[in-house]
Amino acid sequence: MHIYADNAATTKMSRTAIEAMLPYMDKIYGNPSSLYTIGQEAKEALESARERIAVCLGCTPREITFTSGGSEADNQALLSAAAIGARKGKKHIISTAFEHHAILHTLKKLEKQGFEVELLDVHKNGLVTPEQVANAIREDTCLVTIMYANNEIGTVQPIAEIGAVCREKGVLFHTDAVQAAGHLPIDVVAQNIDMLSLSAHKFHGPKGCGVLYARRGIALTNVIEGGAQERGKRAGTENVPAIMGMAAALEESCDNMDSDNFRLAALRDRLIEGLDQIPYSELNGDREHRLPTNVNFCFEGIEGESLLLLLDDKGISASSGSACTSGSLDPSHVLLAIGRPHEVAHGSLRLTIGPDCDQEQIDYIIRSVEEVVTYLRNMSPFWRDLVTGKRPHVFAK
Amino acid sequence: MHIYADNAATTKMSRTAIEAMLPYMDKIYGNPSSLYTIGQEAKEALESARERIAVCLGCTPREITFTSGGSEADNQALLSAAAIGARKGKKHIISTAFEHHAILHTLKKLEKQGFEVELLDVHKNGLVTPEQVANAIREDTCLVTIMYANNEIGTVQPIAEIGAVCREKGVLFHTDAVQAAGHLPIDVVAQNIDMLSLSAHKFHGPKGCGVLYARRGIALTNVIEGGAQERGKRAGTENVPAIMGMAAALEESCDNMDSDNFRLAALRDRLIEGLDQIPYSELNGDREHRLPTNVNFCFEGIEGESLLLLLDDKGISASSGSACTSGSLDPSHVLLAIGRPHEVAHGSLRLTIGPDCDQEQIDYIIRSVEEVVTYLRNMSPFWRDLVTGKRPHVFAK
Repeated sequence: MHIYADNAATTKMSRTAIEAMLPYMDKIYGNPSSLYTIGQEAKEALESARERIAVCLGCTPREITFTSGGSEADNQALLSAAAIGARKGKKHIISTAFEHHAILHTLKKLEKQGFEVELLDVHKNGLVTPEQVANAIREDTCLVTIMYANNEIGTVQPIAEIGAVCREKGVLFHTDAVQAAGHLPIDVVAQNIDMLSLSAHKFHGPKGCGVLYARRGIALTNVIEGGAQERGKRAGTENVPAIMGMAAALEESCDNMDSDNFRLAALRDRLIEGLDQIPYSELNGDREHRLPTNVNFCFEGIEGESLLLLLDDKGISASSGSACTSGSLDPSHVLLAIGRPHEVAHGSLRLTIGPDCDQEQIDYIIRSVEEVVTYLRNMSPFWRDLVTGKRPHVFAK
Repeated sequence: MHIYADNAATTKMSRTAIEAMLPYMDKIYGNPSSLYTIGQEAKEALESARERIAVCLGCTPREITFTSGGSEADNQALLSAAAIGARKGKKHIISTAFEHHAILHTLKKLEKQGFEVELLDVHKNGLVTPEQVANAIREDTCLVTIMYANNEIGTVQPIAEIGAVCREKGVLFHTDAVQAAGHLPIDVVAQNIDMLSLSAHKFHGPKGCGVLYARRGIALTNVIEGGAQERGKRAGTENVPAIMGMAAALEESCDNMDSDNFRLAALRDRLIEGLDQIPYSELNGDREHRLPTNVNFCFEGIEGESLLLLLDDKGISASSGSACTSGSLDPSHVLLAIGRPHEVAHGSLRLTIGPDCDQEQIDYIIRSVEEVVTYLRNMSPFWRDLVTGKRPHVFAK
């Protein structure tokens, strides 16, 4: 049995998305900037993809800029908002401590350029409140950037309410929706979103392709200079095949969202209940306001990497946190942000299920995690110290 | 008959490249940063692609950074060299007037940051000499960036000799090899190249994928901040399918280079000779030092756009210059750089042939261009003025 339970890291491309790409590789392969027929056909496809994606987001096609992925879109959103702010003498930016590194590292870059970055507390439940945002906004605030759904613990922020606060105060609001697009409803107008980033490979589309939505009138700063593609705001020959795959995948995900989420939330809950039976473990992130696909636990006395390798032996692909930061020995900045101490932050397990998940798989995951946790704890001197009382437990049970 | 003669704009993906991509879309789709099996399989594939591409360029795998394409690679190369220069107080950059806009627009950006940019004359033949470079290098020169082959007129620069001059003077040398990779030999060591950009879709690989080669020891500046992919120098989940397609396409192109070029150069020469028979026309760019696939003519009394549309009616996909600048009403900056006056620069035709071209296609193109040029001239008041002597001819015959 192979169970892929790391859909937050990347997804298997859907058949629909692959088939949407193929014709543009060796049939309608023209450069969309070209005048001749197969160039214009590629251009029409590109613009139809833009329209279809705009429908999924509730914006107009002109507000869509195609990028090479979520990271580039995040970078461009922040640099653009910062440039707009700087022109008005506003250099205060509000974000949270548990954003993706595409946000946090870009904020670091902006700090070096003289911007002041304020990271809001995300509390033990991994949630920000609109009140926090309202209280943090100052006269010189140029941007609020808060992710829609967290990539590690799956908590879902009250985006529409945060957007309303920003709109009322006249501050640009960007949301990194990389984990949300295709999984949670997006309506940039109703949710008061000025800028939004998404990445195709998180909803069964291709890697290397994303979108920056920016409300009409927001001047974008180029991250990549060169040709006049994307209204001069993103140079480089448009990746038509990938864009076609992305449009198809987003439409498919949005069409299936309600029924998938209903079914997946029930499977997620079964998984949470099962893992909660393991002693000295605790769910990370709010129980209610979380992605229907995300389960993230900390286990006392466990080293995350060993857990993953043994689960892999049992055919389960899972992660301890973000794939983007794996290889680092530091504990997850997300888990630290919600107040987990280092020693349990190292023993985290993220399971993010996909549309082909079923109850049998969930039960197999629960049994496997129980077995592996027990096995690892039996070998662990650290766990022995906990059991013998030499070291205090972090969790109550 | 459909003849695609715009291979400098983009290419049809080869069967080999498509087949190299497919398994990584829905089978080995894991995130290469993940620990589990299909993540590690993707990682191994990624690293094997890096090795294979390194072999094609004559560098080590660690010197390869994967990007979203040629434009991003160009941007990153220039920003990196500029940052290195700035740290040493060196802010003089040498380039040419007919670089791609990914270079020229990045240079503009650097000028705004206080760099001094000197653009070398490319002469009537579209060539720069190593002596020009040697004479232009100053104490405070931090970078020479000169393209390997021009994207419009196909002229091929003496890259190894320019590289030798730079090496001797201790100045970083970058070459935009987007038009050269897969078409002309590259050996970064023998050619004294410190940094090089390439784009997969110019050699029958996928769009949205490129390489920045940077010699070991050259510190790269991030264009896209975020996760720790590509040794922390290029954030974003690696586009494994596209990278696999790129590696396969580059290997295939390099394997076939000698035989293809021998055959294509003969077809190109036949095409040049044929078009040269059209009165008041002239080849753009040096006759000898040019890509074996590139033919670029100016025709007096012709408006380029009409020429392209009528050729398209005859099944021929061609362009007037770079696809990246189409839609602009300005004449090509490349043709102006080689001294073509505005009125003939507007009447240019670029034909860039691909590996499936044959003599029958060439003869059909010659006949078609002759017919269309004659037809358009017969309708043109501008041409009438030339014929009646009201306006002087630009070309001698």
